[in-house]
Amino acid sequence: MRRRIASFCALAVLLMAAPSFAQSTGPDATKVALDTIWVLVTAFLVFWMNAGFACLEAGLCRAKNAVNILAKNFIVFAVSSIAFWVIGFGLMFGDGTPFIGLNGWMLGGADNSPATGEAYSGIFSALNWTGVPLYAKFFFQLVFAGTAATIVSGAVAERIKFISFIAFSFILVAVIYPIGGHWAWGGGWLAQMGFLDFAGSTVVHSIGGWAALAGVLVLGPRLGKFKADGTVNPIPGHNMGLATLGTLILWLGWFGFNPGSTMAADPAAIASIALNTNMAAAAGCLAATAVAWMALGKPDLSMILNGTLAGLVAITAPCAFVNVASSVLIGLIAGVLVVYAVLFFDRVKVDDPVGAISVHLVNGVFGTLAVGLFATDGGLFFGGGTSKLLVQLYGVLGVGATVFALSAIAWFLLKVTLGIRVSAEEEMEGLDLGEHGIEAYSGLAPQVASAEVV
Amino acid sequence: MRRRIASFCALAVLLMAAPSFAQSTGPDATKVALDTIWVLVTAFLVFWMNAGFACLEAGLCRAKNAVNILAKNFIVFAVSSIAFWVIGFGLMFGDGTPFIGLNGWMLGGADNSPATGEAYSGIFSALNWTGVPLYAKFFFQLVFAGTAATIVSGAVAERIKFISFIAFSFILVAVIYPIGGHWAWGGGWLAQMGFLDFAGSTVVHSIGGWAALAGVLVLGPRLGKFKADGTVNPIPGHNMGLATLGTLILWLGWFGFNPGSTMAADPAAIASIALNTNMAAAAGCLAATAVAWMALGKPDLSMILNGTLAGLVAITAPCAFVNVASSVLIGLIAGVLVVYAVLFFDRVKVDDPVGAISVHLVNGVFGTLAVGLFATDGGLFFGGGTSKLLVQLYGVLGVGATVFALSAIAWFLLKVTLGIRVSAEEEMEGLDLGEHGIEAYSGLAPQVASAEVV
Amino acid sequence: MRRRIASFCALAVLLMAAPSFAQSTGPDATKVALDTIWVLVTAFLVFWMNAGFACLEAGLCRAKNAVNILAKNFIVFAVSSIAFWVIGFGLMFGDGTPFIGLNGWMLGGADNSPATGEAYSGIFSALNWTGVPLYAKFFFQLVFAGTAATIVSGAVAERIKFISFIAFSFILVAVIYPIGGHWAWGGGWLAQMGFLDFAGSTVVHSIGGWAALAGVLVLGPRLGKFKADGTVNPIPGHNMGLATLGTLILWLGWFGFNPGSTMAADPAAIASIALNTNMAAAAGCLAATAVAWMALGKPDLSMILNGTLAGLVAITAPCAFVNVASSVLIGLIAGVLVVYAVLFFDRVKVDDPVGAISVHLVNGVFGTLAVGLFATDGGLFFGGGTSKLLVQLYGVLGVGATVFALSAIAWFLLKVTLGIRVSAEEEMEGLDLGEHGIEAYSGLAPQVASAEVV
Repeated sequence: MRRRIASFCALAVLLMAAPSFAQSTGPDATKVALDTIWVLVTAFLVFWMNAGFACLEAGLCRAKNAVNILAKNFIVFAVSSIAFWVIGFGLMFGDGTPFIGLNGWMLGGADNSPATGEAYSGIFSALNWTGVPLYAKFFFQLVFAGTAATIVSGAVAERIKFISFIAFSFILVAVIYPIGGHWAWGGGWLAQMGFLDFAGSTVVHSIGGWAALAGVLVLGPRLGKFKADGTVNPIPGHNMGLATLGTLILWLGWFGFNPGSTMAADPAAIASIALNTNMAAAAGCLAATAVAWMALGKPDLSMILNGTLAGLVAITAPCAFVNVASSVLIGLIAGVLVVYAVLFFDRVKVDDPVGAISVHLVNGVFGTLAVGLFATDGGLFFGGGTSKLLVQLYGVLGVGATVFALSAIAWFLLKVTLGIRVSAEEEMEGLDLGEHGIEAYSGLAPQVASAEVV
Repeated sequence: MRRRIASFCALAVLLMAAPSFAQSTGPDATKVALDTIWVLVTAFLVFWMNAGFACLEAGLCRAKNAVNILAKNFIVFAVSSIAFWVIGFGLMFGDGTPFIGLNGWMLGGADNSPATGEAYSGIFSALNWTGVPLYAKFFFQLVFAGTAATIVSGAVAERIKFISFIAFSFILVAVIYPIGGHWAWGGGWLAQMGFLDFAGSTVVHSIGGWAALAGVLVLGPRLGKFKADGTVNPIPGHNMGLATLGTLILWLGWFGFNPGSTMAADPAAIASIALNTNMAAAAGCLAATAVAWMALGKPDLSMILNGTLAGLVAITAPCAFVNVASSVLIGLIAGVLVVYAVLFFDRVKVDDPVGAISVHLVNGVFGTLAVGLFATDGGLFFGGGTSKLLVQLYGVLGVGATVFALSAIAWFLLKVTLGIRVSAEEEMEGLDLGEHGIEAYSGLAPQVASAEVV
Repeated sequence: MRRRIASFCALAVLLMAAPSFAQSTGPDATKVALDTIWVLVTAFLVFWMNAGFACLEAGLCRAKNAVNILAKNFIVFAVSSIAFWVIGFGLMFGDGTPFIGLNGWMLGGADNSPATGEAYSGIFSALNWTGVPLYAKFFFQLVFAGTAATIVSGAVAERIKFISFIAFSFILVAVIYPIGGHWAWGGGWLAQMGFLDFAGSTVVHSIGGWAALAGVLVLGPRLGKFKADGTVNPIPGHNMGLATLGTLILWLGWFGFNPGSTMAADPAAIASIALNTNMAAAAGCLAATAVAWMALGKPDLSMILNGTLAGLVAITAPCAFVNVASSVLIGLIAGVLVVYAVLFFDRVKVDDPVGAISVHLVNGVFGTLAVGLFATDGGLFFGGGTSKLLVQLYGVLGVGATVFALSAIAWFLLKVTLGIRVSAEEEMEGLDLGEHGIEAYSGLAPQVASAEVV
């Protein structure tokens, strides 16, 4: 007689335990399994982008603030997980009004996923087009929400209070992100207008970028960044290995971000989207390298990295609607844009230590408009006139104005309650000792006195 | 006429070459392919945890021992691969007695996988519930065995001889781990009692933890850790970027560890397990942050990281048996436990440089018991009484006593033969020069004299 | 009435937009989806190897050149993406002559993928054996082409001009790699002879290795590497954490490289190939560790890492044709070979800072021949005589001579036009400041004066 092992019993128990665990049967069971594998694997890749942002942002800041940035970029996904589970997902995808979802707190309420279309019955109608279990839908959307929050971290780095960053992240993922997200992806007014943002140039990247811009304006620049005589003091990053690794992690993660947004293992679509994503990244990298080389004299590594990310952000909205050549062109434009955006924000004294606003906001806007320009079906350059482009513009403006306003209010409320900026003494000494009581490189390298490296 | 390329011929050859390569046919071929993709992809993620442990443990130790820790955590998977192939897998999953497997050395012997259940015919009956090829079963189990071994590395760091660590790792993966594993997963007496450990809170994490604890007790603390006056000398890690990246790698790897343990692409199960895993990690992170902030005054980054890992270890056994809210609760408890466990082991002078025992042993035990408490089917808090909880307790005690005793014997035998501890001079100078003859950061940072950083 | 969200419309649009997006239907649609998931996920893993090479090579060089190496290894994949899209893929896989492809620039031309075999109709006949969309075929082949180029980077490190490396990478991926690739994988004369190189020991690794060797010979050694008195000055790597992480990334990536080269989710094949790959890596690691320990006195970490990579390179060609025990044996031999190869190249004054030639060229050749020795069907040691071995030898020699010659010409042309070597002053100061104007560890560690660390 054969022995049956505990895990087998476990699995049997598990399959019988709850209605939500009933195994899919019938002709579509294989498709549900295929789609679920795809959604989960790509969600893991998007989760992995947390490591990318952590490495990139820590590498581009100073050693004395590295622990703080790492801690922020690490804890932000934990905060996002709770915030999106309790409130955010319901606001974004729960049935409600064109402006907000009103159902589904803590994933409660009726839902017969993976049933789709007319067969779907439940409170998350806006996600009835994808045939995977509800928990897979939630997990995939959660890693996107976390990405929006982690974008903010880099822009406000090296001077924000740890507790206030945690609080803002909770507000962003629980409320602000879901509102914009509901409009575009949750069946809201933008979705009803035909606004197209396949994987989130607007929903994820520009929302993160607008929230970051509001934070930077309320916080002010780092001490020593802009000198009294009006010149800019460049503050180089302290670990370019970490920054480069982080960018490669992000490039990899984008192969989850964009092709995964099909939320189905559709072979032709996922292959095409993966290729478009890669070609835009490559073109963005080369364009930014060339422009930086010509404009600044040398091919700065941080520009090479940010050019790649610019291409990736820009292709995020159009990746499913454009051809390969257009993807290359979109990437090239993005790579040029990001270099001049970095120079522009320096000139207007907006201090963004890692270039997050230039990458995510500027190219999130550009990528969203690029759908209206390059879409093979209805894009301006493909004979479609300006109607699609105008809808995209409405989305950019509507989401932008709202997210910027809500974020500014949130930052302001935090400023007058918890306070959002560390003391000048702590900023000079470094946030690692002030906020966390440890150094990033204890015993490895003698920290240069903070006054010298400002 | 079309050209046929070599690789095509190659594939054809390959399909005809050996019986084990016969392509699956019939109605279930698609399911076998789906399940095999899932098992392999998740196994790759678990393999990736080797990088996580390497980065985490190197980051939390001193620069002068970094090469040694990296070398240990790298070679341990090579050692595990050979040990598990030659002996371990047969002891763990080969048909035999309730106490030990007695078949399947070097994967030899009859096996008609991917046939399952009654259709299975072969010597690995304990794995007849999963319909994937034998080599996929082996590879998936191998990466788990490697994880148990790598847990030990951190606890014994900064004073163990390289050769003795290699020898202990071989013994652990060849003999000790497979014995405990056979009991719980290989059809042994615990499995027959109904012991539930879905992905290995006990089998992987507490076995690794007990082996580590035995090693730490036989080795003794690092020089300078506990002062003559009874106070504890904190020895901070030297690279928090590496430690944070390592923890994010582990978090990602756990999406292979837990959802992959279905060993089947069951959509509802894998989505639910992935979500439970993530929510426990997030809750563990936030709980440890809060407790460390209140108890220690500042949110220490190493506590933030270890809290996350504690949540992950604790959810490993129950991830398939509990609901999302229980997962959050389990994570919260784990995050609290780990902070106080670290403080406790410091107080009783058990020197674990990276907190591995607090994370893997303490929360491996807690997670195993949590099945008896929170299982929706039969858990104490869900009206199931104490019977399930008692079986879990028997498993914890039986595996714990056995593994601790066997490990202590192995460590003792190594101590009186090869010796297990480097000389005091080498420990002061650092194991990198003593054991490997190179430095981790040659020419980058002048090493601070070892006397100063002790 | 249910709301339909924008992304759903988007998907619909996408499915109707272009013929290449027509959803697969009929009895094989599930297989196409399965195969495409497998090809894309494994391609992502191979893409990830770019991060592995970047970390490994940066870690094994000096801090003063780290930015330059990171920048090279980052931009090389962007360059490869454009070069392979515009020219390389057509030369390699387009229909043409036994010596070169003559179709398919920028992926243009007829192709009815995922149709296979006789049902295939298009200009990429050499890839008609895999049933995935054309864009998936291209993307998978692109990440392989990028790997060949990134191998070169490490060998020529610490003295090559950034612009010349970019130019050579373009030439390699656009022309040289596709020629050798066409012969073996594109239906060329080697394929017609029955040459077997399953995942590219020759096509990827030895081509990269030959190109690197030519570059090293034209460039000459780094200043200070070989002293006037004939002795070798060891130049240790500056960051062994980065190097170890890089090697673990590569090990993980190889689970895409080899099992993905089935380009189909064939359960038995992919499980077996994954296991063979892992066992060769483990054996290579242990063999190199033992040999280095005996020959050099201590287990040098860089030898441990390179031994693993040697095993991986060697199993790349035979992974689909050999059994597990042979894989272990192949890995053991590779691990021995790499240690003595490193010592040999030092003795003959070929300066390869990271050991790339010893790993990729020497073991690429060995792995290719190993097919003729160990193949269960037709290998010399399995009673197949020498005919298979001879064909493998022809491949090694034919590809080697051609690639070495073409690469030498390319390097020479670059030398007399752009120049390929930085000035002695820049080499002493470090290429980071000279080529990029930034330091890798700004403000973290005071750079030791370059004269001291030579």
